Amino acid sequence: MAVEERKARLERMRHSAAHVMAEAVQSLFPEAKFGIGPAIEDGFYYDFELSRTLVPEDLPTIEARMKDVVAANSPFVREEMDKAQAMELFSAQPYKLELIQELPDETVGTYRQGSFVDLCRGPHVDSTGDVKVFKLTGIAGAYWRGDEKRPMLQRIYGVAFDTEAEVEDYLARLAEASKRDHRKLGKDLDLFSIHEEAGPGLVHWHPKGALVRQIIEDFWKQEHRKRGYDIVYTPHIAKLDLWKTSGHWDFYRESLYSPMDIEGQEYIVKPMNCLGHILMYKTQLRSYRSLPLRWAELGTVYRYERSGVLHGLARVRGFTQDDAHIFCRPDQLEGEVSEVVRLAGFMLDMFGFRDYELLLSTRPEKYAGTIQVWEEATEALRKVLEHLGLDYVVDPGEGVFYGPKIDMKLRDALGRLWQGPTIQVDFNLPERFDVNYIGDDGLEHRVVMVHRTVLGSMERFVACLIEHYGGAFPVWLSPVQAIIIPIADRHLDYAHELAGEIEQGGVRVQVDDRTERMNLKIREAQLMKIPYMLVVGDKELDTSTLSLRLRSGEDLGSVPLPEFMSRARALIEARTPDKL
Amino acid sequence: MAVEERKARLERMRHSAAHVMAEAVQSLFPEAKFGIGPAIEDGFYYDFELSRTLVPEDLPTIEARMKDVVAANSPFVREEMDKAQAMELFSAQPYKLELIQELPDETVGTYRQGSFVDLCRGPHVDSTGDVKVFKLTGIAGAYWRGDEKRPMLQRIYGVAFDTEAEVEDYLARLAEASKRDHRKLGKDLDLFSIHEEAGPGLVHWHPKGALVRQIIEDFWKQEHRKRGYDIVYTPHIAKLDLWKTSGHWDFYRESLYSPMDIEGQEYIVKPMNCLGHILMYKTQLRSYRSLPLRWAELGTVYRYERSGVLHGLARVRGFTQDDAHIFCRPDQLEGEVSEVVRLAGFMLDMFGFRDYELLLSTRPEKYAGTIQVWEEATEALRKVLEHLGLDYVVDPGEGVFYGPKIDMKLRDALGRLWQGPTIQVDFNLPERFDVNYIGDDGLEHRVVMVHRTVLGSMERFVACLIEHYGGAFPVWLSPVQAIIIPIADRHLDYAHELAGEIEQGGVRVQVDDRTERMNLKIREAQLMKIPYMLVVGDKELDTSTLSLRLRSGEDLGSVPLPEFMSRARALIEARTPDKL
Repeated sequence: MAVEERKARLERMRHSAAHVMAEAVQSLFPEAKFGIGPAIEDGFYYDFELSRTLVPEDLPTIEARMKDVVAANSPFVREEMDKAQAMELFSAQPYKLELIQELPDETVGTYRQGSFVDLCRGPHVDSTGDVKVFKLTGIAGAYWRGDEKRPMLQRIYGVAFDTEAEVEDYLARLAEASKRDHRKLGKDLDLFSIHEEAGPGLVHWHPKGALVRQIIEDFWKQEHRKRGYDIVYTPHIAKLDLWKTSGHWDFYRESLYSPMDIEGQEYIVKPMNCLGHILMYKTQLRSYRSLPLRWAELGTVYRYERSGVLHGLARVRGFTQDDAHIFCRPDQLEGEVSEVVRLAGFMLDMFGFRDYELLLSTRPEKYAGTIQVWEEATEALRKVLEHLGLDYVVDPGEGVFYGPKIDMKLRDALGRLWQGPTIQVDFNLPERFDVNYIGDDGLEHRVVMVHRTVLGSMERFVACLIEHYGGAFPVWLSPVQAIIIPIADRHLDYAHELAGEIEQGGVRVQVDDRTERMNLKIREAQLMKIPYMLVVGDKELDTSTLSLRLRSGEDLGSVPLPEFMSRARALIEARTPDKL
Repeated sequence: MAVEERKARLERMRHSAAHVMAEAVQSLFPEAKFGIGPAIEDGFYYDFELSRTLVPEDLPTIEARMKDVVAANSPFVREEMDKAQAMELFSAQPYKLELIQELPDETVGTYRQGSFVDLCRGPHVDSTGDVKVFKLTGIAGAYWRGDEKRPMLQRIYGVAFDTEAEVEDYLARLAEASKRDHRKLGKDLDLFSIHEEAGPGLVHWHPKGALVRQIIEDFWKQEHRKRGYDIVYTPHIAKLDLWKTSGHWDFYRESLYSPMDIEGQEYIVKPMNCLGHILMYKTQLRSYRSLPLRWAELGTVYRYERSGVLHGLARVRGFTQDDAHIFCRPDQLEGEVSEVVRLAGFMLDMFGFRDYELLLSTRPEKYAGTIQVWEEATEALRKVLEHLGLDYVVDPGEGVFYGPKIDMKLRDALGRLWQGPTIQVDFNLPERFDVNYIGDDGLEHRVVMVHRTVLGSMERFVACLIEHYGGAFPVWLSPVQAIIIPIADRHLDYAHELAGEIEQGGVRVQVDDRTERMNLKIREAQLMKIPYMLVVGDKELDTSTLSLRLRSGEDLGSVPLPEFMSRARALIEARTPDKL
């Protein structure tokens, strides 16, 4: 495939660019010790140990040297040698020596260009002149081999493409992504905070962020109830033994928090909601007629993540899954999964995500249950996707050990993919907890359990929403939907009177009654991404109107209140994601 | 006061009844070792170590012997002796010996009646003949001095009153309370469960219980938003150091769970929500104009309670507080507290609690802050209660160490008091966390913080609701509001058609489509406390009506659907607590 070829070629070029950068750095820092320098998406990096800390001003200098290396057009020359020779060659490079010692093969590959030689499997482009357009984008600290106990190296990131236009486009997307960074917007828009004093990865939702979350949760509950889900609550801590029975202690121990002691028993904060639902299921004998049971919970779970990988709301240590467990008969599985896929698509669509990728993950090497049930379940999932006419990719061997799954990844406004809904069939827990129903034959049968989310988690989904919309939420989700800006103090009474009526009409409104200039108030309201600015002055007071400005900058002039209200209410009631 | 005198007299009589019971037990079990035997509300108990385990059939025998003791009319004779003499007198009674050894005084008091002598401060009635009407009500195990590591004794409970009628009334109330026990109804109505496997005191809310809770929570949120509260979310775990700074580690360590370790830092599950709110408050400079901030959270907190004291939903280890923190200026305190008291009264009233007791708790011996701020705050609370014209009792010295408080105790249908709303002024946390605002003088001032709940916790409040209503929730809170009972299979289509319309109309309805007899279905629906039973047969099908039965048993005959709907909807929309 041309796409695959292009990808491989770009990767080769980017990897070569890393070597070019290493040669440039070596010429500037002859004492440099080299870590590793791979190609990554859109570019490359290299990790160095240097005599001093790099500053952003170093990057143009390094870039200039790189251009010299490219201009020299030195060929990339592969050589093979035995380990002893390689140890000799890299005797001044402790990180390379460590890598060589760990290599399983007796011969070691190197690549040389110009004055630089690197331990490397390749492949590379033919010569440094084939490295096209590049740009160094940043410096970061990176532990050697990602291990906090090893030395911190300096990592330089770069991007490389075939053309100047592509680099510019990439940098523009990068700048846009950085403007939309939910961590920045979360602070600017006063949506949430994370506190070192309370612990990294633990989100505190401020009033406006919490309101967005609540609106989503209320909508989510309503749509679930319509579809026959019941909502339940289970506690956040439970005895560790439950997680031993379930297998989580064996399979996910690294994600579990350390136990706490209560009257000599070990408890942990729950990493998932399923076990509480199973205990409730088992409080009664369940008949085949009572299935399916669809139990949903906005359940906050806690999982350990290394502090280094935490990222705003997108990667956290505590998160609220929009979770549900469906307990059903095997003959109901296909219908249930089909409804979940539809529901997930409907929800994503309502939030303005029209584009997503579907993955069907099949049996991994290590699995619970028999091959036969795996095949039946995988077939059921496949049928669902095909009956719904959805494009999907099979991800072979990527199912969870307990069953096959369907993942949906949503594409945001910048084309980036976010982990979204997941639908997982589970053969393991019903077996381990002996979860049954009484069939029409009067005998006990094993229930089939489906774990599913349709948003993923409230934290990650809101992160994605913020970045997708650049903080300018659809009207129905905006914490403040309209702000009234009186031009002078004599318009304050009218402003508050209007506010009362607007609030009564179900639109969230504020009055900016500070003694600041109108233009400043408008600018600040725009920065706060408030959909509607309602300016009121003498003219509006006399004509009982308001002057309507959209956050997009559009000025709609004088509008009677009922007209504004019907415009706003229509969008709010329909939950329209993309109009003002 | 006559009331106080009567109370003291009854207590004396009940204490004497305990001695009478001890004499009776001694005559039946000469080897008995005696623990303690105090008067309690409505009666008395005595703890014994006996050669065999008592069975309920023993109680009439003991009662008969007690009557003999009463008939003997032996005087209660007080004696004083020194410790050595007392040790001699009780040499065969190890529990009494232990008590004697611990007495601080040199002389020891005893009371003797007939053949029985007890270590006792008194007072008692004059003679056993003054012990009026009594009834033994139960046997339970009780650790000596409440300590799980000491021997388990056998406790016999009894009640004693002046008249037979009072005893009967008491026993009837007891029987009614036992019918209304929320633990029993919680199981019968499928509202919640608690699982030894997950841990005692940790509540799992089943669909119907969770629905009741959600309806309450939604109403609670709506009423709070109307009153200018913002809703927030904070995590369930936080670094232990925060709780050291706050003082909770010193003052409440016994209620905190043991820490868990995350990357070498100690974390605990939160016992309260305040610290997260303080961290959020401190993310910005706050001006005097931005106050008050009213931040509400349905925050689930975890506190250790001994497993012996756990009791259904009423006393648990994890509970969701309907919490809020008000950050205000000192001059706003009175107004804010006044609004909270009104809100609490409004909420209790909406749920059908018309009668409650108000307590104003003042400065304890150990307190934070200065006497002056305590006096000002206590005065503010007192003024609020007086301006609102509310009766209250001062509970001297019973404030929390951090400030004075108002507690509201609600009285249920059986006249029992439940801990309800609490409003606590806090001088401690603003000081420890340096929580300030910028005054109109441009300087930093310490904020005043108010902790408050208006229901208490979802768990305890729902326990109270269940017992208050005996499980027959007001229509708006009923998980299932109507059940359609088709008389025969040929009425099923009509039943489902009706159900669709009723559901559309916003009434939660089910169809009992089992092939069981109508009378059985009606009986079961009544047991499930479903407000409306809609029976449909040939006549209803022909006339497009339904036959309406109330859960009270009242039969209203044929009713057209719109009439039923407007009846039900009116009660639901008005949240009427006491009509069907």
